[in-house]
Amino acid sequence: MSIANRPETLRWEGSAAGRLYLLDQTLLPAVCEELCCADIETLWEAIRSLRVRGAPAIGIAAAYGVCLGVQCGWQNEAGFFSRLNEVVDYLASSRPTAVNLFWALERMRNLALRLRGQCGVEQLPERLLVEARAIHDEDRATCHAIGRWGATLLESVDGVLTHCNAGGLATAEYGTALAVFYTCQDQGRRLQVYVDETRPLLQGARLTAWELSQRGISTTLICDSMAAQVMKEGRVQAVLVGADRIAANGDTANKIGTYSLAVLARAHGIPFYVAAPVNTFDLTLASGDSIPIEQRAASEITAGFGRITAPPGIDVYNPAFDVTPGTLIRAIVTERGVIAPVGADTIRTVLNS
Amino acid sequence: MSIANRPETLRWEGSAAGRLYLLDQTLLPAVCEELCCADIETLWEAIRSLRVRGAPAIGIAAAYGVCLGVQCGWQNEAGFFSRLNEVVDYLASSRPTAVNLFWALERMRNLALRLRGQCGVEQLPERLLVEARAIHDEDRATCHAIGRWGATLLESVDGVLTHCNAGGLATAEYGTALAVFYTCQDQGRRLQVYVDETRPLLQGARLTAWELSQRGISTTLICDSMAAQVMKEGRVQAVLVGADRIAANGDTANKIGTYSLAVLARAHGIPFYVAAPVNTFDLTLASGDSIPIEQRAASEITAGFGRITAPPGIDVYNPAFDVTPGTLIRAIVTERGVIAPVGADTIRTVLNS
Repeated sequence: MSIANRPETLRWEGSAAGRLYLLDQTLLPAVCEELCCADIETLWEAIRSLRVRGAPAIGIAAAYGVCLGVQCGWQNEAGFFSRLNEVVDYLASSRPTAVNLFWALERMRNLALRLRGQCGVEQLPERLLVEARAIHDEDRATCHAIGRWGATLLESVDGVLTHCNAGGLATAEYGTALAVFYTCQDQGRRLQVYVDETRPLLQGARLTAWELSQRGISTTLICDSMAAQVMKEGRVQAVLVGADRIAANGDTANKIGTYSLAVLARAHGIPFYVAAPVNTFDLTLASGDSIPIEQRAASEITAGFGRITAPPGIDVYNPAFDVTPGTLIRAIVTERGVIAPVGADTIRTVLNS
Repeated sequence: MSIANRPETLRWEGSAAGRLYLLDQTLLPAVCEELCCADIETLWEAIRSLRVRGAPAIGIAAAYGVCLGVQCGWQNEAGFFSRLNEVVDYLASSRPTAVNLFWALERMRNLALRLRGQCGVEQLPERLLVEARAIHDEDRATCHAIGRWGATLLESVDGVLTHCNAGGLATAEYGTALAVFYTCQDQGRRLQVYVDETRPLLQGARLTAWELSQRGISTTLICDSMAAQVMKEGRVQAVLVGADRIAANGDTANKIGTYSLAVLARAHGIPFYVAAPVNTFDLTLASGDSIPIEQRAASEITAGFGRITAPPGIDVYNPAFDVTPGTLIRAIVTERGVIAPVGADTIRTVLNS
């Protein structure tokens, strides 16, 4: 299955009474299959079990999820808004860390609240679909802008390391961190990309290595524990990752293992970059200390590959994310420009630009 | 299968015409089964494919392997020594990094050379078996001594992190790094041990977590990428690992991911300790730069657990070991005492004591 003819990461088909189709990422790279979401329960499960994942993609999926949710369960305007709140709250409970989820849901709810009284309630589903499509389209444009800004940071870089998947599978298309690599490729540059396999769910091995190799980018897969050695051997001159939530001071929640890479990069004198759209910032949080970190099931670690790989009943610690202090991040690449040095003032300046 | 009635890591049964039995560690923890080695080809494959692994255990296995090898293939004294050299060279080719393998093989060959002419060649197989048993017995004693010395380093420690398996499965019994935890337990102390799963072959999840929990030690399994977060949260106050080869200046080859832990420990102000018998030192190497690092098959990373987890044909970098600079190691625990600070002089002093 080439990248050209693979299903989109997510797509809406039909009118406001339509369906959301997700590329089921838990099956990749072996199987490339869409999941049809006709109700919010199916979508909630798909988000929770990472069939769709990546902060921007979760936001887009949730926006379409609101459209799914208001297809039923109401009779009049009061009922509509009651149902809307129910849908938003339900979808918000699917995963706790990526702020794009809450951002998209609030944008959808706020649109409906703004339109209340301005148009008939029967028109609201269609207007919400237009908004969800706008969020989807904006993310495409955002990814391309991030790619262009980020490419300027990698001008003297031959090898780069990334973690998890911040690619087309995590966004509308093209990605955040991976958009930078694609843009370098479009500019005729040859990058060597080292990809952490990203335990426990192997998004690096299953998704990033697949995306990059499909696009003909030189890709080398490593275990997470090999990153330090790759740095020591001088194979990479930069680390670039995505983000799930960024606090006002630049502290960044991202896939577990990101903080480790940032510490290792600092120790090896290698710049550590984050690429993320502005809707990944949560300026209500002064620092990363209050970013909620999702804890996931032990079985992801003990039985993740179809075989039991640990003794039964063993205690497991399985945080899905960690928080990298802004002080370890050389620059954050957004669609509005590069934030560097990383700090509350520089972040505010770029976000308000 | 409890630790009490599990098969030994390795055992010789019978006279000089006997057999070597190995607990097949590739099947653990699901299956607890011995492999009978009746010839050196079976043993070579068992070492290469990590059915027996851990530097001290490989050394013991190789010593018994010499006994297996000289059961056939010679008719007279000249033939015996020719066969002996063939066996030693063959077994030495099984894996390149752990120096205990070469140390044990040379000890066996040197014994035979010393006895040449002193006794009839027909007596040599029996004498070699006595020597192999001595290597085996000495390792047991060594492990207990390492445990006692190491426990003194962990007196103010509640939580400790380890990597790979430096336990009873890697040695005659009791282990090197894990011997320290067992000794603490024998002294009535309660340690919380965090165990890196240790990709790609999951010796931490499959072997260490199993050993520790069988002995009733509080054990928490994590992915390798979570170690930095565990340190940041203050859950561990020390890191303790084994070693496969230690150069004259203290540079230490150990399972891939060890170097990463040492850098992370330094960044978090946590002491990083190595536990190893003196036969792990290779004083012929001034530094770790010349320790040969085994590269292993891509399939360990892309298809290790019965399921394909990466795109077909993807490039993989899979070094089995890395080298931690002696400067990052707070102390090395040997059976002769604790080496600290770590440097060529202090190492020589303890090794010559």
